[in-house]
Amino acid sequence: MANSNPSLDGVFHALADPTRRAVLARLGQGPATVKELGQPFRMALPSFMKHLTVLEDSGLIATQKVGRVRTCRIKPRRLAAAEAWLVEQRTLWEERTDRMVRFVEEQHASEQHALEQHGKEQTK
Amino acid sequence: MANSNPSLDGVFHALADPTRRAVLARLGQGPATVKELGQPFRMALPSFMKHLTVLEDSGLIATQKVGRVRTCRIKPRRLAAAEAWLVEQRTLWEERTDRMVRFVEEQHASEQHALEQHGKEQTK
Repeated sequence: MANSNPSLDGVFHALADPTRRAVLARLGQGPATVKELGQPFRMALPSFMKHLTVLEDSGLIATQKVGRVRTCRIKPRRLAAAEAWLVEQRTLWEERTDRMVRFVEEQHASEQHALEQHGKEQTK
Repeated sequence: MANSNPSLDGVFHALADPTRRAVLARLGQGPATVKELGQPFRMALPSFMKHLTVLEDSGLIATQKVGRVRTCRIKPRRLAAAEAWLVEQRTLWEERTDRMVRFVEEQHASEQHALEQHGKEQTK
């Protein structure tokens, strides 16, 4: 069942924070080192590293250490899974709304028809 | 800035749980009472109510009590905001990938051209 998907739990949890969303947005432009990524934030390195760990654990980013430099890159597949879940919900919801609109229109049309028939009967 | 959007924090946090995602999926089919919503879950009512509170606080659902019955309905606007954020990230990421592909193709074409020129020079 799509709703009991542990990887979606981790992805949505990772997205529920402005620092982590900003890091993802930055990595969408291309890979970056931890130092580059951390620069825009007024945050101690250990706190910032915790955010990167959450992102890595959720499968949204991958990191690689070469010498003393750790580089991060985005992994778009899990973001796509989150988007797919939201699109699925919207589609179901829109289909239901369309069905409701059609039902109301049909009701209205059959009432109009009944009224017209009644009018004809009266003028006979 | 789109990334420091407190309402997105709440929406993604609300989505990071399978029970809450299942409730949203159910409400996509139409409004339901708390009793109806809780039925599929083996969960004590107070725990289930906490999930509904998280959903209501995030703006993803609205609830209304008439007499002793509380009815819930989905509010699709915040779901749409979450989807829009993900679509924006994907678009940026895809544009970058396209630029990279074009760059590599252009590099390849100019190398081919240089090789052909070199070949012509040789056969003169």
